[in-house]
Amino acid sequence: MNERKFKHIGTRPVRPDGVDKVTGRANYGADIDMPGMLHGVVLRSPYAHARIRSIDTSAAEKSPGVKAVLVGTDLPDLPRDLKGGPENHVTLADLSRNCLARETALYHGHAVAALAATSLEAAQEAVQKIVVDYEELEPVLEIDQAIAPDAPILHDHVRTAGMRGDLPDGPTNIASRIEFSRGNLEEGFADADVVVEREFSTPWAHQGYIEPHACAARVGEDGQAVLYGSSQGQFLMRDLCVGLLQLEPGKLKVVPAEIGGGFGGKTTVYNEPLVVALAKKSNRPVKMVMTREEVFRATGPTSASKMRFKMGAKRDGTITAASASIYMEAGAFPGSPAGAAAMCCFGPYTFPNFSIEAHDVLVNKLKSAAYRAPGAPMGALGTESLLDEIAREIGMDPIELRLRNAVQQGDTSTLGMPYDRIGFIETLEAAKSHPHYKAPLGPNQGRGVASGYWFNAGMQSSANISIHADGSAVVACGSPDIGGWRASMALIAAEELGIPYERVRPVVLDTDSVGYSDLTGGSRTTVVTGMAIIEAARQVIDELRARTAKMWDVELDAVGWQDGCAVGVNGAGDNEPMTLAEIAAGFSATGGPVNAEASVVPAATGPSFGTHICDLEVDKETGVSKVVRYTVVQDAGKAIHPSYVEGQMQGGASQGIGIALNEEYIYDEKGVLENPSFLDYRMPVASDLPMIDTVIVEVPNPAHPYGARGVGEIPIVPPLAAVANAMSDALGVRMTDLPLSPPRVLGALSEDV
Amino acid sequence: MNERKFKHIGTRPVRPDGVDKVTGRANYGADIDMPGMLHGVVLRSPYAHARIRSIDTSAAEKSPGVKAVLVGTDLPDLPRDLKGGPENHVTLADLSRNCLARETALYHGHAVAALAATSLEAAQEAVQKIVVDYEELEPVLEIDQAIAPDAPILHDHVRTAGMRGDLPDGPTNIASRIEFSRGNLEEGFADADVVVEREFSTPWAHQGYIEPHACAARVGEDGQAVLYGSSQGQFLMRDLCVGLLQLEPGKLKVVPAEIGGGFGGKTTVYNEPLVVALAKKSNRPVKMVMTREEVFRATGPTSASKMRFKMGAKRDGTITAASASIYMEAGAFPGSPAGAAAMCCFGPYTFPNFSIEAHDVLVNKLKSAAYRAPGAPMGALGTESLLDEIAREIGMDPIELRLRNAVQQGDTSTLGMPYDRIGFIETLEAAKSHPHYKAPLGPNQGRGVASGYWFNAGMQSSANISIHADGSAVVACGSPDIGGWRASMALIAAEELGIPYERVRPVVLDTDSVGYSDLTGGSRTTVVTGMAIIEAARQVIDELRARTAKMWDVELDAVGWQDGCAVGVNGAGDNEPMTLAEIAAGFSATGGPVNAEASVVPAATGPSFGTHICDLEVDKETGVSKVVRYTVVQDAGKAIHPSYVEGQMQGGASQGIGIALNEEYIYDEKGVLENPSFLDYRMPVASDLPMIDTVIVEVPNPAHPYGARGVGEIPIVPPLAAVANAMSDALGVRMTDLPLSPPRVLGALSEDV
Repeated sequence: MNERKFKHIGTRPVRPDGVDKVTGRANYGADIDMPGMLHGVVLRSPYAHARIRSIDTSAAEKSPGVKAVLVGTDLPDLPRDLKGGPENHVTLADLSRNCLARETALYHGHAVAALAATSLEAAQEAVQKIVVDYEELEPVLEIDQAIAPDAPILHDHVRTAGMRGDLPDGPTNIASRIEFSRGNLEEGFADADVVVEREFSTPWAHQGYIEPHACAARVGEDGQAVLYGSSQGQFLMRDLCVGLLQLEPGKLKVVPAEIGGGFGGKTTVYNEPLVVALAKKSNRPVKMVMTREEVFRATGPTSASKMRFKMGAKRDGTITAASASIYMEAGAFPGSPAGAAAMCCFGPYTFPNFSIEAHDVLVNKLKSAAYRAPGAPMGALGTESLLDEIAREIGMDPIELRLRNAVQQGDTSTLGMPYDRIGFIETLEAAKSHPHYKAPLGPNQGRGVASGYWFNAGMQSSANISIHADGSAVVACGSPDIGGWRASMALIAAEELGIPYERVRPVVLDTDSVGYSDLTGGSRTTVVTGMAIIEAARQVIDELRARTAKMWDVELDAVGWQDGCAVGVNGAGDNEPMTLAEIAAGFSATGGPVNAEASVVPAATGPSFGTHICDLEVDKETGVSKVVRYTVVQDAGKAIHPSYVEGQMQGGASQGIGIALNEEYIYDEKGVLENPSFLDYRMPVASDLPMIDTVIVEVPNPAHPYGARGVGEIPIVPPLAAVANAMSDALGVRMTDLPLSPPRVLGALSEDV
Repeated sequence: MNERKFKHIGTRPVRPDGVDKVTGRANYGADIDMPGMLHGVVLRSPYAHARIRSIDTSAAEKSPGVKAVLVGTDLPDLPRDLKGGPENHVTLADLSRNCLARETALYHGHAVAALAATSLEAAQEAVQKIVVDYEELEPVLEIDQAIAPDAPILHDHVRTAGMRGDLPDGPTNIASRIEFSRGNLEEGFADADVVVEREFSTPWAHQGYIEPHACAARVGEDGQAVLYGSSQGQFLMRDLCVGLLQLEPGKLKVVPAEIGGGFGGKTTVYNEPLVVALAKKSNRPVKMVMTREEVFRATGPTSASKMRFKMGAKRDGTITAASASIYMEAGAFPGSPAGAAAMCCFGPYTFPNFSIEAHDVLVNKLKSAAYRAPGAPMGALGTESLLDEIAREIGMDPIELRLRNAVQQGDTSTLGMPYDRIGFIETLEAAKSHPHYKAPLGPNQGRGVASGYWFNAGMQSSANISIHADGSAVVACGSPDIGGWRASMALIAAEELGIPYERVRPVVLDTDSVGYSDLTGGSRTTVVTGMAIIEAARQVIDELRARTAKMWDVELDAVGWQDGCAVGVNGAGDNEPMTLAEIAAGFSATGGPVNAEASVVPAATGPSFGTHICDLEVDKETGVSKVVRYTVVQDAGKAIHPSYVEGQMQGGASQGIGIALNEEYIYDEKGVLENPSFLDYRMPVASDLPMIDTVIVEVPNPAHPYGARGVGEIPIVPPLAAVANAMSDALGVRMTDLPLSPPRVLGALSEDV
């Protein structure tokens, strides 16, 4: 595999969807229009916690233009044990209640009713006429409050799932608890020369995708429904909607729109089941487009965390023991990424003794959703901050300390599985030798390094390839294109078939038009759907060889495939090589069109590692800080399209820097989000950041035919810690509570003084 | 094969697309709408024959709202040897000129320019401002005029193609001539006791589909184009448009709309290349919808014919010889169905001596296109009329006479190929024993019988099947659904997989989403695309068996498939049978999604035969006639969905009756069509016809796994002759010139008197 010379893989062609996207022709979720289409809007709870005594929709129903009104009880009443969603930890009953409240409104902004009318204005006017009789309840707004013995309980039926430790029986806001451990923690800490222990906190942070959620649906009189919209998985949307609405899968076709960013936030449903239900009830097409405020108040950002990490080391840099206690705010329904944080936080290192516990805590805030390597950036903040502190204490270079404890092939993961060939050490070495690491710092500047681990998802994918009569190809799949996937599809097919990139047309199809594929997420699409494309292409080549054998009147094994041509081998070398175009011209005479379909579900996909270096400058008068230099080193296995790998590295780092420095959900004491706009929720823009430098390390992944690894999530894992370590370096104070916003920096400086 | 017991094949479920179609939700060609869409219109020639000296578009370009104007020279100048179209007898250079005239306008209504503007009204106003400087030429309007030595020539470059016989060299309006013969014609006629000879003529007749041609297109800045519209083949539309516009196939995706009838008339392009060119030129989406008048004046009805048939028989009913000389009006460019008429006219019979010659004649009328069994109804008119006359002369029952000469397995076709198992004799016997054939006739009534033959097309098809996680299936193909094809798709997949019909979702996909498939036409889709579905389903079953074997930990050959379940065989019988749904639930654990794709190009598909009985009543005072009873007997091989087979039989008969009795293109002396509307072009409506009785004969077709045969075209073959024979019987005068409209009937009666 290492020997393979690639012709297309590793090149940087223009993406096939690029022109349509930059010229505004591409159709996103809100761009659909259908004759007679209604506009749907949602009524949202003004309370963070309130019993819903009754909902009176009669005035709204009579409001001009209104064709259908929907309340929670209009949706199917689902048993509590049906699972849904990619991680299968959300029950459909919870998801249904998150889409439309039933007994209680559980957060400010929680949907309580929806309606569809002939215009958006008519809908907005009518929805205000819905009268909800609320009984306000005390909201649970923070982890400490939620886990206190006398806390108000969000869901009476919830008992702690998983390893219960010493948690009491009975109703609780701790939805689940998991543990991982190895060795003997006490002995490990006893062996240590240095022990450090810190508490950390991180904020609720939104993915901040450009495109608000948008969807539309039509339902025929025979119940056959079509849902249009942008998401990270058309099959996922279908399966969630048919589960929530109790339809047969064949009754709902989901047509993917282009997607203007997801980062995990478009892996679940909000308005999608409502728009189908409204379309059915009104017997008209319906469209629902969220406002930016709705996106902030009622979709799924990543969870706030509170964590305690402890680590012991010998003077030579050997870590002897580490422990982590993680609490994450799930929001109104179970499902924070606490478990993934636990799985990932010690992933890069071979600690002989460790213990991790992670808790999923219910609070009266919006339900968290996946956000790029969910939980891992928080876990890495704990681990990498303590490593930074230990390096200082023992006077060792922080990268050297990491190298001393880094995992490599044969080591055992947190979950007890052996690592195959991985490239973590190579990222550390590349970072260590990078000019950035040796560059001098200016005044009021600090430098931090941090590493990270992400496991990468596998799951299922399908792909088709069809050959045109001119020898060009269509490659089709069911994985939405979020970060340049169509370019990778075309590169992979071009590589296998041996034809130019421009001769491959990559398309993403609806759920009726291609085999099942899991979502675009978990850094799985290029790797796993890519495997399906490779497999389909190889089937195509076998068939092309067979067609050539027929034309040459030789056995199949006398035809090889080389550079897009059938070539004679094993005694058939006298035959003039035939190009794919020449073979295709004869399809109708040799057996008809050549197409192939393949599906895969890989047993393993191989994890990813990265190491980041951050230089930060602080204005100590105002507390304002700025990243002045940032380098991302990452093992991509084999970069299919290096520009898009670099884009992922830069994008992940930017998002991580945003969470580290400025982004946070700010709630008032009633649980009302105070900053639901991009003006007040401060994401970094281009002018806030330096050009982020990237170094792609390529240690081929044995689990993939080209050696590729998932690259999309790992770059957001180190930045929280890298920035915090840089800030701690600049201030001379260990910074543990994110975001490191100006007030917090000033606070730390004043404490220090 | 004959033994197979079917569970679904042969049942009559509701069609999956039925509800959407009857409730108006289905999207036809004109239903597409895109943001910023322009409306395109065409300027048409007011002369049947005129040189185009110049076209001045400057005023139109300045007209309000106009965004693009197109004249013939804007289209690529194509070499004259590029072929296009399903029958490959049309050159792309001709097709391009039919879409938009170049040097000459060749018929009244010929497109000479097109433009796109922001509204239909603006476009209609602007198109009148295009100034064309014409030099009027003498039009050639009839066969005799066209083939006369001094005829004006339509195309200076045309020389007679094919077997030239005694035709002169040099420019000609006889575009081609073909011959078939066997035995010795002179000896054959010398052996005969009775010889009859007649001249026949038939009119130009339109398919009369409900939906006028409609299409729309958008073109991206990168040249990537999408064409929407209804047609009989999305791949055909793509291939014709990329040929005419000289694009790469991968640059044009064609998305099929529902189609409101085609009958052969939607197997070529008119506005489709223009709408793509206008979209490219204007950089805006464009839609073009023909008016009914445009459909009549400028699409492709079937050709008018003039024919001379001669036949000799012995007193015992043995036909000793037959000859046919056929001339058909191609219209402005080569391509009448004269050749197919020649291939089919003697198809049902084993004449030992015969000779057929067929001529394709250019005239200044619109270019003919395919119309349901193109040419065969005209050929059958000649043969079946003479058989009727011979039966009278020798005093033999006309069905008995046909039985005496009917082809059966082992006989040789007109083209010299042996027939495999066919069901012609069975249709004659079923007709003979049908109550209709023995029922008494009333006053002024006559009865006619006639048979017909159609060869049925093969060509290429692809199909996919994907299995949902609940064990339901999607079956997808690239063949448009015109006559209930989705129902057949679902029946075939249900039959193979062993699941309920309702659990199969049949879909028709665009050219990027499924493998290549030739058009829906030639009575090929249910048979040939059906074979691809059967093949894909069998691949799916093999994979389902493999998955089960994995779960049971047995060899593949220990798992059978029965009634939608994997069952243990060969020693694995202890395993509980697993349903498809149970196997599907485990897909992610056993190897991922199960999908399959298959393509076919059958070597043979087997011909079809039918025999019709017609009772006609004539009002001898007015000449008005009415079909009072009509029975269609047809060999369907195996009827997949008998209701849709019966629908085809009734529809084909109705169209044939229309041509026989009333339909015709009426031209004035300048070549202007005088009846371009459904008011003046008189197709039969429901109240004009009796309920047409149908008898499906099932003689399994050895070329198909279920024994199915194409059923769509053969039912239009016998009616022209059956009606003419009935009319001749009623009037006591041999009627040879169609349509048998009241003036003609009165004329015949007055001659007779």
